[in-house]
Amino acid sequence: MPLESPHHVVVVGGGFGGLQLVKDLKGAPVKITLIDRRNHHLFQPLLYQVATTLLATSEIAWPIRRLFRDRPEVTTLLADVEGVDPGAKTLTLKGGERIGYNTLVLATGATHAYFGHDEWEPVAPGLKTLEDATTIRRRMLLAFEQAEMETDAEARDALLTFTIVGAGPTGVELAGIIAELAHVTLPQEFRNIDTRKTRVILVEAGPRVLASFAEELSVYAQSALEKLGVEVHIGERVTDCSAEGVMIGETFIGSRTIVWAAGVQASPAAEWLGVPADKAGRVVVEKDLSAPGLPDVFVVGDTASVFQEDGKPVPGIAPAAKQQGAYVAKVIKARLAQKPVPAHFRYRHQGSLATIGRRSAIIDFGRFKLTGALAWWIWGLAHIYFLIGTRSRFVVAWSWLWIYLSGQHTARLITQKETLQAAPLDGGKDR
Amino acid sequence: MPLESPHHVVVVGGGFGGLQLVKDLKGAPVKITLIDRRNHHLFQPLLYQVATTLLATSEIAWPIRRLFRDRPEVTTLLADVEGVDPGAKTLTLKGGERIGYNTLVLATGATHAYFGHDEWEPVAPGLKTLEDATTIRRRMLLAFEQAEMETDAEARDALLTFTIVGAGPTGVELAGIIAELAHVTLPQEFRNIDTRKTRVILVEAGPRVLASFAEELSVYAQSALEKLGVEVHIGERVTDCSAEGVMIGETFIGSRTIVWAAGVQASPAAEWLGVPADKAGRVVVEKDLSAPGLPDVFVVGDTASVFQEDGKPVPGIAPAAKQQGAYVAKVIKARLAQKPVPAHFRYRHQGSLATIGRRSAIIDFGRFKLTGALAWWIWGLAHIYFLIGTRSRFVVAWSWLWIYLSGQHTARLITQKETLQAAPLDGGKDR
Repeated sequence: MPLESPHHVVVVGGGFGGLQLVKDLKGAPVKITLIDRRNHHLFQPLLYQVATTLLATSEIAWPIRRLFRDRPEVTTLLADVEGVDPGAKTLTLKGGERIGYNTLVLATGATHAYFGHDEWEPVAPGLKTLEDATTIRRRMLLAFEQAEMETDAEARDALLTFTIVGAGPTGVELAGIIAELAHVTLPQEFRNIDTRKTRVILVEAGPRVLASFAEELSVYAQSALEKLGVEVHIGERVTDCSAEGVMIGETFIGSRTIVWAAGVQASPAAEWLGVPADKAGRVVVEKDLSAPGLPDVFVVGDTASVFQEDGKPVPGIAPAAKQQGAYVAKVIKARLAQKPVPAHFRYRHQGSLATIGRRSAIIDFGRFKLTGALAWWIWGLAHIYFLIGTRSRFVVAWSWLWIYLSGQHTARLITQKETLQAAPLDGGKDR
Repeated sequence: MPLESPHHVVVVGGGFGGLQLVKDLKGAPVKITLIDRRNHHLFQPLLYQVATTLLATSEIAWPIRRLFRDRPEVTTLLADVEGVDPGAKTLTLKGGERIGYNTLVLATGATHAYFGHDEWEPVAPGLKTLEDATTIRRRMLLAFEQAEMETDAEARDALLTFTIVGAGPTGVELAGIIAELAHVTLPQEFRNIDTRKTRVILVEAGPRVLASFAEELSVYAQSALEKLGVEVHIGERVTDCSAEGVMIGETFIGSRTIVWAAGVQASPAAEWLGVPADKAGRVVVEKDLSAPGLPDVFVVGDTASVFQEDGKPVPGIAPAAKQQGAYVAKVIKARLAQKPVPAHFRYRHQGSLATIGRRSAIIDFGRFKLTGALAWWIWGLAHIYFLIGTRSRFVVAWSWLWIYLSGQHTARLITQKETLQAAPLDGGKDR
């Protein structure tokens, strides 16, 4: 049981920001309650690799409570937060339980935004959770399976057309891997279809792919995608999504598999606190990342709107969330020690990386830019370095090396309910 | 596309029997259609390790069509078979498509039987598919999570009581690992509960655990289980299962997690063919494994009732299914070559193995019997040897070595719908 008296820090969200904060509070005179809706921390930058059969779910996710098993002052709860009462300094869990705090840190993240078309979500799932990844993996693999059985040419073409909406890093990475899967990995395995004729369509409303990178790298990335056989549609808008296909501007394209990789919608932290939010729902925080008027409540990561000194927004990437978590830990420790508090959070951009397919990547470290195979190796080493735990590092390294050498993906499993409409052997089973 | 004329062998089921048959037909003048409801072959002997967080799903499952990518005469279909017309020599797929065959092999397996109490299935899931394994894994992990939050002592005890029905290899293996998970792996990670107080109850209606092994090994196994903290109930019957708990005879025990590892119910192959079945629904086959009166239809594996020369039934284990698949391949090849056909199938028992927890096993090779740590190593090497593909062998070996050395399980992920009742961030998402 936690001690009775110490300062109680409640952290909501076990993503990059929340975990960094709890790590950095080690040794501080506090008790900590870490609450998440999931039992695992997810290494989101590699989630697209689960969706595209390169990695298995357990290779990029770790039980949160295991990470803090040696920290008796940290209590981990699997629970849904439903609201915050900043006046009473309590938060309410689903089920009604209330938890008091001295300091609250909200690190609850964001999801994708459908720009007012939430009805598209069932046919165009996004990619934020492990279940999203296995849903996309299942749909993609099932499309090939169904195409192998389909006798109608038009229906077969729609099954073999994959549309990715949004050409940020996730969209680009998905498109590249799906194209390689269809054009390189699968052709030998099907007898009735030629998977090399698979269309992979990447749609971006903005003026270029990977808009957060330098323009020359966008040009490289687009040409690398096109070499892999991806059809890149720039400056075009998706105007409708359905089970049959996608409308790009005024043109309908039959496409049974659509993946949504556009837009950002923050979690409802601003609503919980009753404080101002930006258009994407992010809390517009103070310079020390506290919520306006609530000095004991901090908001970090994708659910906070933070600006750099040059006026640019801090990007919604893992290193930014980690830096914010580390900064808030510093503030909390300084306050408790009654030392001067660091005046405001400063973001240090360490660089941007993205992969295009299995052997190419782009790196943007500002002055230093790199493309191609060497960039891919650096990208791979960087991501293995940041994975938690020796075992995961090793297993992911092995998976990648295997794929690199053999060209075979191994996590090609169709699981969960959608697999087949009814199972004659064991119909009605709880899945 | 397959050739027009050759003899068409249709195989239903990509388990051990079906795969062995297709492998052994290599080089025969046939075209083969392999149909399965799932896209993957499952290494069922290790499925309990996925349910208990030791292995990840992709470590024991492989896309079937990948296994035969170098065999252009093999077409793999992901489809549900709904019936067979032995007169017309066709089978019907869900959706109505008909497929003609010259020779049909049914290798459709079996599932667990609830002895007339199918209503227990939702609260006491069995362990036959990857989804079963992740369902059990999720329920087990959620029980600990909910116990950590539960304030009512009785409810907490029920959450920390796990009941396994049936003490065959699967039941024994599950009980051992769950006890170790609760008593060794988890204690450090929880703050409000003591997971060492977890009860693991193994109920067996028969007179001993592991009835298919020599009696001295059953005695050893039971005592090894009890040392791990498993409560073994022998000669007792489960008379009711509910979401609250289990009735053993006349006694109610609060137990929120129940796993069913008893009974066998064959797939409906006998119904499809309109031939006699035994009590468990297995086709009573001829000595050459053909269905009675249907010389062009073979039934192998768990869905066939086959006897040894001493009158004992052939056990429902992977080596038996493989031997049957190999035998039928021989018969098909001999018939096509118009050579004498092997008179009848003979089963050669190679031995029985089972593990108890993480470092002990029993081995029964008839005259040669072994227990303890050395048996565990032999068991491990044997299973790694039988896994398909270099990569899986390596990854599973690594996972086990890691668990052995560190005592930490790594695939402790709660996924899928049951996780939390509603997700505030992205409610209504398709999972």
